Formats: sequence, structure tokens, C-alpha cells
Amino acid sequence: MLPPEFSEEWLQRHRRRARTTQELIEGIERGDTVLLSQAITLVESRAERHQQQAEEILAQCLPKAGKSMRIGITGVPGVGKSTFIEALGQEILGRYGRVAVLAVDPSSSVSGGSILGDKTRMANLAADKRAFIRPSPTSGVLGGVAGATRETLALCEAAGFEVILVETVGVGQSETLVREMVDFFLLLLLPNAGDELQGIKRGIMEMADWILVNKSEGENRARARLTQAQCNNALHLFPKKASDWQPKAQLCSALQQEGIADSWQAVEDFYAQMRGSGYLQKLQIEQTEYWLQNSIEQRLKQLFFSNPQVIAQLPALRQSVLDGTRSPFRAADELVASLLKSM
Amino acid sequence: MLPPEFSEEWLQRHRRRARTTQELIEGIERGDTVLLSQAITLVESRAERHQQQAEEILAQCLPKAGKSMRIGITGVPGVGKSTFIEALGQEILGRYGRVAVLAVDPSSSVSGGSILGDKTRMANLAADKRAFIRPSPTSGVLGGVAGATRETLALCEAAGFEVILVETVGVGQSETLVREMVDFFLLLLLPNAGDELQGIKRGIMEMADWILVNKSEGENRARARLTQAQCNNALHLFPKKASDWQPKAQLCSALQQEGIADSWQAVEDFYAQMRGSGYLQKLQIEQTEYWLQNSIEQRLKQLFFSNPQVIAQLPALRQSVLDGTRSPFRAADELVASLLKSM
Repeated sequence: MLPPEFSEEWLQRHRRRARTTQELIEGIERGDTVLLSQAITLVESRAERHQQQAEEILAQCLPKAGKSMRIGITGVPGVGKSTFIEALGQEILGRYGRVAVLAVDPSSSVSGGSILGDKTRMANLAADKRAFIRPSPTSGVLGGVAGATRETLALCEAAGFEVILVETVGVGQSETLVREMVDFFLLLLLPNAGDELQGIKRGIMEMADWILVNKSEGENRARARLTQAQCNNALHLFPKKASDWQPKAQLCSALQQEGIADSWQAVEDFYAQMRGSGYLQKLQIEQTEYWLQNSIEQRLKQLFFSNPQVIAQLPALRQSVLDGTRSPFRAADELVASLLKSM
Repeated sequence: MLPPEFSEEWLQRHRRRARTTQELIEGIERGDTVLLSQAITLVESRAERHQQQAEEILAQCLPKAGKSMRIGITGVPGVGKSTFIEALGQEILGRYGRVAVLAVDPSSSVSGGSILGDKTRMANLAADKRAFIRPSPTSGVLGGVAGATRETLALCEAAGFEVILVETVGVGQSETLVREMVDFFLLLLLPNAGDELQGIKRGIMEMADWILVNKSEGENRARARLTQAQCNNALHLFPKKASDWQPKAQLCSALQQEGIADSWQAVEDFYAQMRGSGYLQKLQIEQTEYWLQNSIEQRLKQLFFSNPQVIAQLPALRQSVLDGTRSPFRAADELVASLLKSM
């Protein structure tokens, strides 16, 4: 039996009424977070019956996107991303009306996601009506976790959030995908100097627009400074970015709320420079092209690897390639020919 | 009329006799470079009538591959790759019996390749019977330029070349592909310190197993040392390689033949360490898997982008994505659905 707080009457009262597409679109436009959440759920849904509605909502909302500041935040687990976002969120809300926090975390989708987790680890922000926190979509979403997040981001933009933070764990593929949906990419590091840098994924430092050595408080201070100096040396060696923006490493302590305003100032400087140069429009077009290309490739691979003929032939052909009796190029030809014949 | 040196009689005498598959395979096995060249031409051919023969040759030769030292060499145009390979080739031939030099250069395939070019720019090596120089395949080859080069590499391995150098211009996609077909990847830089590093492609330094600052002679010496120091600082910051190998930057002057023996010693050290750790076998399996995956993706994209239905629909859908009236994920779904319906 259900406990009293989940009584049939309670459920009836709180059960979501299915909204019309128009209601949802209007809700998003006036920034209603309950309706925004429902629209996001539709967009994330794989169910056939939600597709039409999701597409109509996106078609109405996408043209209204493109005005928010989109900031990616990455770093290994334990670097203090939640505490940092809590602190940064307060800083942002001192300057702007509303902030949204999205997360792309492929690992949490394995464990089924964690709405509660996201809200408890950013308790102050979660309690603030001006902040909207949306956890990682689950892995079963159409177009993958990244695709769902990018569509969610567009809905948040249409809902008028001035700033949208997209959080990701910097240990897999997801940070590359997040880099392709934000304007500014922030890397958090621990004050472990060389050791820390050895632990992060190859290429991630080159992706960053800004590096923050977090937990630079107390006895960590000296190591943090060393990490900062090493990063700054490395950053100067990397080839120039298309944006012409010169990334730097700074210190911060999210726990003691130190260096947070400076971090945000870097973001403001970036936008001031990029709005002047026309880079942001160029970036958004490039990113859109990237996602179209990327989605086509994902769909084609899905089509290929779920084809019964391919599934039947792949193991033997793959083995012959590994044994060196067949060139990988020829094996690929045979498999694609099978796919074609089976359709 | 043909000039006398191309008389009918001359052509008759020099015209290649079509060899049987068995003749070609046996020729490769005893290291006959004329037959090796003919087999490579078959492998590069797009002609339907050559496919069967090419596949048989590969099936016989691939299991005999895997014993050569495969070295990738990259650097921007003007860094002195040809002069360096000339010098390195002599060093190698002082230690080993035979060396092959292959090139992957997507730009030269536009201009139709340059056999003469490759042979004149490495005149000494080209004149040496122990060296085999094969220019870039043209772009019209099956599986693309990189695919053809990787198959050629396997044939050279089967032909018993102890060392195979694969040269590429470090300005596009080709160095990533070359990295996936060699054991050791060498980056040549000019002694321009920061400027030089700003010019190379993002990510290329992280790919390198060794960096050589070439042209470190005369008045370039001081700048070369600075470049070397900056590179060594950067190399220590990069995340550890899967091979556990620590890349370094050294100076060399291919023109004055200085630092060439030291460069080769680094390669020898690498192989000594990797043969001990079992890393090479692991790498070869990973690379084979990479090429199978990569080839499947290439074939699928080719299939997709050459489909008449897709060609007809793509421009309007792409525009609707750029206009923001359609999500890229939904547009990709529509296009793939069209592809399926049309087959």
C-alpha cells in the first residue's frame, strides 16, 4: 500500500496533465520551468508518440535560440565541479536574471541518472528560483545523450536563460561533444602540478578556453601555483585558436569562494572580444554543421551495426582481418555490400 | 609522332607484361621491387578487373607483415623532410639491409602525384638499390589515399623491408591517419620557437613520439635551442602515452648530417623498450581495429552522400538546420530514412 503522501488523491492532484504543443511552446517562451521540463522530457523521449510533438516544439524554439552565454565546464571527478558551479551560479545571478545548469555524464546514465544527486550537490542553486538544474539525460534517448543535451540547451535558450552551464566529466568522449555545443570551455584542475596533468585526457587542455586550478586554498597554495605556472607555459605553446582568444590558467577556491568573480570576468572578456570579432556567429554555424554531420554518421553506424546480415558476418570477417588474411578495407567493402544486398 | 626514345619498338620492349597473381606474390616474397611496384599498382587500382587479384595478393602478404619498423615522419612544408629522409635513409642502410619510403600527401594527389619529384628530391636514396621509394597514391584509389598507403605498407613488410618510413605533410588530416599505421611518429620542426609551434596543427605535438628541431645549424642554433627547450617543457605536461614512452625534443641538421645517428638511436631505444613490454602487438591489433572501423565509416558515408535521394534532399534540410527550424538530429533522421526508402 502507498504511504499517505502518495495516496491516490495526491497522485491525482500532482499527476502531470498532458500539455498541448502550443501550451508547451508558450510555456517555454515565458520561461515557465515546469513546462520547460516537460518539453525536455518529450525531446529526450524515444517513444514514437512523442516524436511529432518534440519536433514541433524544436522547430518553434530553435530559431529563438542563439542568444545565451553557453559555458562548458569539465574536470575529473573530485576536482570540485559542483562546489564550483554553486559558487559560479551565485556570481552569475548577481549579474544576470537566470541561469540553467545541464549535465552530460555518460557514467551517470549507466547508473540511471541522479536528479536528487544533482540537486543535493548544488543545494543553494537548486533552492534558488532563478536557477534551473537539469540532470544528465539517460542513455536511452534519441540521438544519444549529447544530442538530447544539445536540444535541451536550445530549449533553455528559447526559455530566455542568459547563461547556461553545461557540466561534463573530463574523462571520456563527452567533453569533445560538449565543446561542440558551447562557446566557452572551462577546465578545472586539481593543484597537483605534473601529476594532475598526467591524469587528464590527451587533448583536453588544448580544448580549454580557460583553466582554473581549484582547491587553491591553505596548504595547497604552493602546489596550485606550480600547476598554474606549468599550465601557462603549456598554453603558450599550443597553436593559436580560431577565435584568437588566448587561454590562461588562474587559481580559485570554490570552497572559500575565492577567484570566482575573476573567473567570470574572463568569460565576460571572452564574449566582449568574440562579439566584436563576429566569431560567435561563425562558431554557431560550424557547430550546427558538426552536429548534422555527426548525427548522420551516428545514424548510419546504428543502421549498419544493427543489420542482421552484418551482425551475422562481422565476427568472422573481423577475425580474418585480425588474423591478417584480409585487409580491413576489403572487409569493410564486403560488409557494406552485404548491408546493401539485405535491404 | 613519338620521339625516338618512345618508339613503338621501345614501348614494346619496356611494356609491362601482365603477371599472374602467383608471380607477383613470389616476387614480393623474394623482395623484387619491380614486381612489388606492379602489385602496389594493382592494390591502388579502382578498376573492377584488378580487385580479385589485389585481394589474393593481400591475403597472401598480410600474414607475412608485422615485422618491419614502421616510422611516420611529419612536418610542415619547408621543414626539410626530404633532406632529412635522405640522411636518415643512409643511417638506416648502415645498419639494415633495406629501407622503403612511402608518402601520403593528399595535396600531391591533386596535382597528380610526382614520381619524378619524389625521386629527385631524394636523389641519393633513389639511386641506392637497397632503397625503395614509392610516391603518394593518387586520390582516385580504392579506400582513399590512406587505405592504399596502408596496404602498400603491408606489401613492403611482406617484401622484407626492415624499415619503412611513411612521410606526410603535417597540415591536414593525413598525419592522424599515418599515426594509425606506424609504430613511431616523428615530428620535424623549424627552429622558430613559439612562432613555429603556433603554426603546426593542434594536437600534432601530442601525437609525436619524438621531436626533431631541424636546420639547427649556424645562426639558427640559438633559436633551435629555445624551440627545443619549449618543446621539452610542453612534452612533460602532456598526459602519459599508452606506450609509457617519454617523447623528447632534440636538435638536428639534415643538411650537415648532424644529429641523424642520435635520432635513429631514439627509434632503436623505442623498439627495444616496446618489444619488451608487448606494446607493439597491442598497438597493431588496435590499429587493425581502427582501420576496420574507419573503413566501414568511410564506406557508409560514401554510400550515403552518393545516394540520389539524399543528394536531392540534403541542401534544403541542411538549410533548415542552419536557419534553426530543424534540429540537426531530426534532419539526420529524415535523411537516413530517405536513404532506406530509396534502396
